[in-house]
Amino acid sequence: MKLNMSPEEFRHWGHRIVDWIAHYLEHIRDYPVLAQVEPGELASRLPAAAPEEGEPMEAIFEDFERRILPAVTHWNHPRFHAYFSVSASPPGILAEALIAALNMNGMLWKTSPASTELEQVTLDWLRQWLGLPDRFFGVIHDTASLNAVHAIAAARFRADPEVRRRGQTLPLTLYTSELAHSSIEKGAMVLGIGLDNVRKIGVDEAGRMRVDLLEEAVRRDLAERRTPFCVCATVGTTGITSIDPVAEIASVAERYGLWLHVDAAYGGAAAVAEELRWVLAGAEHADSLVVNPHKWLFTPLDLSVLYTAHPDLLRRTFSVVPEYLRTAEDSRVVNLMDYGVPLGRRFRALKLWFIMRYFGRRAVAEIIRRHIGWAQEFAGWIAADPRFELAAPAPLSVVCFRLKSDDEDNRRLLEAVNATGRAYLSHTVLKGRYVIRFAVGHIATTEEDVRSTWQTVSEAADRLGG
Amino acid sequence: MKLNMSPEEFRHWGHRIVDWIAHYLEHIRDYPVLAQVEPGELASRLPAAAPEEGEPMEAIFEDFERRILPAVTHWNHPRFHAYFSVSASPPGILAEALIAALNMNGMLWKTSPASTELEQVTLDWLRQWLGLPDRFFGVIHDTASLNAVHAIAAARFRADPEVRRRGQTLPLTLYTSELAHSSIEKGAMVLGIGLDNVRKIGVDEAGRMRVDLLEEAVRRDLAERRTPFCVCATVGTTGITSIDPVAEIASVAERYGLWLHVDAAYGGAAAVAEELRWVLAGAEHADSLVVNPHKWLFTPLDLSVLYTAHPDLLRRTFSVVPEYLRTAEDSRVVNLMDYGVPLGRRFRALKLWFIMRYFGRRAVAEIIRRHIGWAQEFAGWIAADPRFELAAPAPLSVVCFRLKSDDEDNRRLLEAVNATGRAYLSHTVLKGRYVIRFAVGHIATTEEDVRSTWQTVSEAADRLGG
Repeated sequence: MKLNMSPEEFRHWGHRIVDWIAHYLEHIRDYPVLAQVEPGELASRLPAAAPEEGEPMEAIFEDFERRILPAVTHWNHPRFHAYFSVSASPPGILAEALIAALNMNGMLWKTSPASTELEQVTLDWLRQWLGLPDRFFGVIHDTASLNAVHAIAAARFRADPEVRRRGQTLPLTLYTSELAHSSIEKGAMVLGIGLDNVRKIGVDEAGRMRVDLLEEAVRRDLAERRTPFCVCATVGTTGITSIDPVAEIASVAERYGLWLHVDAAYGGAAAVAEELRWVLAGAEHADSLVVNPHKWLFTPLDLSVLYTAHPDLLRRTFSVVPEYLRTAEDSRVVNLMDYGVPLGRRFRALKLWFIMRYFGRRAVAEIIRRHIGWAQEFAGWIAADPRFELAAPAPLSVVCFRLKSDDEDNRRLLEAVNATGRAYLSHTVLKGRYVIRFAVGHIATTEEDVRSTWQTVSEAADRLGG
Repeated sequence: MKLNMSPEEFRHWGHRIVDWIAHYLEHIRDYPVLAQVEPGELASRLPAAAPEEGEPMEAIFEDFERRILPAVTHWNHPRFHAYFSVSASPPGILAEALIAALNMNGMLWKTSPASTELEQVTLDWLRQWLGLPDRFFGVIHDTASLNAVHAIAAARFRADPEVRRRGQTLPLTLYTSELAHSSIEKGAMVLGIGLDNVRKIGVDEAGRMRVDLLEEAVRRDLAERRTPFCVCATVGTTGITSIDPVAEIASVAERYGLWLHVDAAYGGAAAVAEELRWVLAGAEHADSLVVNPHKWLFTPLDLSVLYTAHPDLLRRTFSVVPEYLRTAEDSRVVNLMDYGVPLGRRFRALKLWFIMRYFGRRAVAEIIRRHIGWAQEFAGWIAADPRFELAAPAPLSVVCFRLKSDDEDNRRLLEAVNATGRAYLSHTVLKGRYVIRFAVGHIATTEEDVRSTWQTVSEAADRLGG
């Protein structure tokens, strides 16, 4: 009976897996981006029960390669152009192995001084890269969705401090644009605020929240004796990467005492490049802001950062300290468990620290700059081709386009492209019409990949037309 | 300017890091378990800003070893006996490297058939190991704290379905024992139910929720026109690992229409051993149950499993599907994003799958059995030593004890033990008295480690007495 793995066996398999990963990253273009399997196919090829006796690593790894890998959609592929294109860069992968080996839980300073302090230092570094004010305090959670819950909860606590003890006592209303990410609605729903109390404000032609409509909605709610408490602006909406006028929204927020949350999960990263810093204009007025290094900063999933100008409020929203979690150092340190829901916290800061140091700001900015450039080139090809039309402006690295035809043809085009395995794109619906999204963002994507994907799209359109 | 890391450099550093980890795991007893640093020490040794130009891996790794490592509290140390003793087993560490390299996001079946199906298969395997009914559906989130939020939110939705649209409309009350984990209170607070609406039910001499007091509290709330909606039982409380009478609590839950949530985050793992399956007696009646493979099932942080008998209810509590997340397969597949808050989901199932296969059920059961045996031995030494007394029964692998002296002496004893670096224990307060907790649970812990820790405790007590 194997009661542990020996250091020799770990070393052997560690080397094999490192070699496998190196080979995978080098030859990843040989894999179809989108898994070419049917629902249930993998499950049907796995045993219905776990083994009673342990199995050799050889057998496990063979099943990983033969059974699991064919069911993988390759998010780390340079021609993954769906949703947002993300990447696990090599330094980030190396850091993940160390994070796992240390297995540190950063709930308290004492249980993990390294994790607690490196998280604060690294998030302050990132804050500087993004040009955000130094009063912003950062904390890491898994996803922007969870960070939205945290931001909205803190906003609610400020507006309705009774919530901690008595539950919500006021008829609170929240404002966001109709292009905001679904996690804002989900957050308000989960927290017990209710979807009916989320106002989805209309957008202008470029998909930016209309500040006049925002103010109108706030005034209407006030007139009807509701309590507006929070507005969520987006820097880089998921559908079309539109950028809300944050500075103007901040004025409205200030006028009516609303908490301003900025969802810059994807778009915020652009601010690392000096000439793109404008994307976060106005964000210095935010009460909270989310940016996801696991989106466009080459960090393996998951690492989402929540900044807030009110760390003390965040702490008072979430802190519950039972006796067994008290330490002698409590009055002198930051205990990160006090700033959110999860008690267990992986040492995620280490991967961001590896990546920021390995690349440095100038390289990160250059990669992002190239992504945007290639997206613009792609948009140019679309605009120049009489079969296609651009469906929205493309301010960052996502291009929304469609065949000048009906929704069904566009749906068939997308399916045809994805079925080739050469690229993976996704869709959205804009003004009632089906639209294809092309996202650039992987660290290993090249101009050649972008050209190749355009060719795949163009050829698929030819076949549809024939 | 480095715009990526070459496969050669990844291979080189991958091998170095694997060798480092192998050496770390082999020689981990050379490190002090508890970091011997002062608050701010690490932060003061790191630059105030990230570099403009990238740095060599050599420099980064050197800083990891020289600056970060001394500030690490070694949770993966076999003499980490604080809180719950957890472990990142070698097969789990190997899987983490693959998870990072694939960087798959399991939000939708289509974006990750492998992640979605392996999660369901692996959690069904684990369900069988725990002897839970086959109607239980499992989903992975980061922590038991977040899973408590999910369970309580689903319970609220069942009791008050208006919550999705209008926000909470009923005066809901939740019940748990005074020894329940703080995450239950935090969950109710964050969700806007309010701490005043959490009833902390008294416990018996063994620290188990008193069912008579539970029923009394429910009846009182009903009489006062409140709406009891949920009871949380604990299998292995954090303070003293007491095990609530789940079957009896289930009867009360059934009688009053309460959602029964079972927090078996730590204790549930014991049920993998046939003779310990009693710890989950009654859990077959649960509406939801949490067990954490990252606690006592040798899985690197983070991986917490939420089982529910009502997957459809969980889905209706959380599902919000914007157009850009619709796929052609939606009606035929499980999209895991529908069952909770986080949209981004790492491929965590892979590490549990590696571990369950590598060890098999019999070895996992044997390791757990030994941990409990050694904890019982330790308890025996305490009971036999006239300087000490046991502070609570020790049904699993945590022993609560104290010097027969005042709180201050016990606090000094704990600090003296932890300052040696040879072991790390934590504390709690029971019936107003300071109590030391000794937890066994690491995969590499040996009987010799347990003896050595007892010797460290005993010698520290000698020095205090002198």
